[in-house]
Amino acid sequence: MIITLTTDFGLSDPFVGIMKGVILGIAPGVQIVDISHDIRSYDIIEGAFLIESTYKYFPTGAIHVVVVDPGVGSARRPIAAAAHGHIFVGPDNGVFSGVFENEVYHITNRRLFLDSVSQTFHGRDIFSPVAAYIAKGAPIESVGPRILDFLKRPLPTPRPQGDRLLGSVLRIDKFGNVITNLRRRDLPYDFSIHVAGLEITRLYSSFSEAEPGEFFAIEGSAGYIELALDQGSAADKLKVTRGAEIEVESMSSNH
Amino acid sequence: MIITLTTDFGLSDPFVGIMKGVILGIAPGVQIVDISHDIRSYDIIEGAFLIESTYKYFPTGAIHVVVVDPGVGSARRPIAAAAHGHIFVGPDNGVFSGVFENEVYHITNRRLFLDSVSQTFHGRDIFSPVAAYIAKGAPIESVGPRILDFLKRPLPTPRPQGDRLLGSVLRIDKFGNVITNLRRRDLPYDFSIHVAGLEITRLYSSFSEAEPGEFFAIEGSAGYIELALDQGSAADKLKVTRGAEIEVESMSSNH
Amino acid sequence: MIITLTTDFGLSDPFVGIMKGVILGIAPGVQIVDISHDIRSYDIIEGAFLIESTYKYFPTGAIHVVVVDPGVGSARRPIAAAAHGHIFVGPDNGVFSGVFENEVYHITNRRLFLDSVSQTFHGRDIFSPVAAYIAKGAPIESVGPRILDFLKRPLPTPRPQGDRLLGSVLRIDKFGNVITNLRRRDLPYDFSIHVAGLEITRLYSSFSEAEPGEFFAIEGSAGYIELALDQGSAADKLKVTRGAEIEVESMSSNH
Repeated sequence: MIITLTTDFGLSDPFVGIMKGVILGIAPGVQIVDISHDIRSYDIIEGAFLIESTYKYFPTGAIHVVVVDPGVGSARRPIAAAAHGHIFVGPDNGVFSGVFENEVYHITNRRLFLDSVSQTFHGRDIFSPVAAYIAKGAPIESVGPRILDFLKRPLPTPRPQGDRLLGSVLRIDKFGNVITNLRRRDLPYDFSIHVAGLEITRLYSSFSEAEPGEFFAIEGSAGYIELALDQGSAADKLKVTRGAEIEVESMSSNH
Repeated sequence: MIITLTTDFGLSDPFVGIMKGVILGIAPGVQIVDISHDIRSYDIIEGAFLIESTYKYFPTGAIHVVVVDPGVGSARRPIAAAAHGHIFVGPDNGVFSGVFENEVYHITNRRLFLDSVSQTFHGRDIFSPVAAYIAKGAPIESVGPRILDFLKRPLPTPRPQGDRLLGSVLRIDKFGNVITNLRRRDLPYDFSIHVAGLEITRLYSSFSEAEPGEFFAIEGSAGYIELALDQGSAADKLKVTRGAEIEVESMSSNH
Repeated sequence: MIITLTTDFGLSDPFVGIMKGVILGIAPGVQIVDISHDIRSYDIIEGAFLIESTYKYFPTGAIHVVVVDPGVGSARRPIAAAAHGHIFVGPDNGVFSGVFENEVYHITNRRLFLDSVSQTFHGRDIFSPVAAYIAKGAPIESVGPRILDFLKRPLPTPRPQGDRLLGSVLRIDKFGNVITNLRRRDLPYDFSIHVAGLEITRLYSSFSEAEPGEFFAIEGSAGYIELALDQGSAADKLKVTRGAEIEVESMSSNH
């Protein structure tokens, strides 16, 4: 059995080590896989993007614990869900918006928790032990009642404005590639992308097609259009950050 | 069998990978769990805090290797200890101060070392192979003679001064919460905490109880009083760092 | 079976998690060990240094995937190699220069790839599944034809100039130690090392022999001469970075 961990805890504090200890205490043989602990503090959208991009590459049956949890200790519910053959465990705050279908359970069964539950660290007290018990064979129905009113926050999608399409920047990756919310199908054959005062009109299929210093578009590995600069950081050069606006138009409609 | 690793090696250099290779070469089936490699260079107190906070969440029998070792190559001894059902392996420099009881052994048995022992990397040459042999079944007594004069450096505890209690900052966590060395029992019912020119008089049980922008105290997941700011960094706003002084008084005694 | 991962992907993006998912989907029981994902973007030499320093500490039979791949999607070939009882999988760009002998294969067998191969993420689509199939028992010959013209980029070695030896800085480690490309045998008994306007004449065998504030040379754990400062960062104080020049002379020849 595989349990993956995705959090905004960083690796300098003991939080992640503690979660692993709790899991291995309950389910000794489980394989724990770190996806990332480097999500910006409290950034639910970044967590949602990360788990949505990653879970599908794991074998079905994997259990994915995601703890980006600004509302810990409040009325937000702990949940577990089954979707696409995987199990997801974490807070009901939209962090699973990209993966949920409709089989979602409110975690209420205290026999699956640590003996004492804090109001500050549900990753340790609730999410890790629940995931470990599921890994050991507890059916997902055992965590608590099924719910229908779980929170979904869809990622922002491009919207038309006149003869243009307005997209936005979802994320900057480690290499400085600017991941947009545009798909290949959103680009007309003679597209022109406007971002930060620059016009991009080339779509390449690999980074190596570009000339040195040339900005270009590329369909990235997550299926989104990315704005890139070969062996350089497009984001640094363009000075764009997450949320920045991107305009797409057809060059012919342009004239 | 579980071996955990806690070091100040970072993850950019090959040191941690090398330790894992050595362990798996000796004890192929062992589960290696990274606790943190992000301890500040040579910071024995931070290492002591981290392992003391974390080990108890692992199942008994786990072996915890901690390498924060400014004295490598000097006369400081390599040690192994049994405490609370766990095994600890590392340098005798106080890094295990929070966990040791009294069963401590000086590691001298060279048959448990790598063939060639450097004076700069005992994590590779001594601590990893010793931990791996213990994981494979070597009794802890086999590492060398028991010793009684191992080093203990207790964490700083609050001290009374007149009608006040003087505490200090143990640590800043990734979210900017200020972890103090105060316990819940150290706070009178009408407490007033003075830190960096600010007065804090509220103790909440969860982060979500606070008003936006409000500083408050909370009992953190490690059992210490933390000074916090909801969804913001209290440490950045207060400009406090580890070691900063904190004064606690009773509001009634104040007047 | 062990598969190690070394990349320049960082841990904030989903890339590493995705590779682990792909591997575990094909070879469920395999032990995945992270060596480092913190290599500077596109820095093939740093990747080469890291895997060359680390692989030999793993048990033979281990499979080492290294993805530092600025040429992904270009004509650079994916390769697998057998050397020193280990298997190496990655791009043919010199990243394995420190480990290759002569048994190198061009990976062309598409049955070992993911169904759809992108031109931007061969770590996911080619290198991870190929490594996983080899871990499951596929012979290395099954990946494709053997090649002889693979790329080797040897690390820079010291060169004599008059009665001096000119070396260079290979790397700065996390502690600020300056790792040079000099070996112990390159230093005459009465050596004098000139770096960044400073003269170093002491070679110690452990960090603890130095006086506070003293610069000294030491044979580091990777077998190279390092320039160090006890419990401080020599690199910060000397303001040297990778590639900086180092002069060695004999004190007697000096006069």
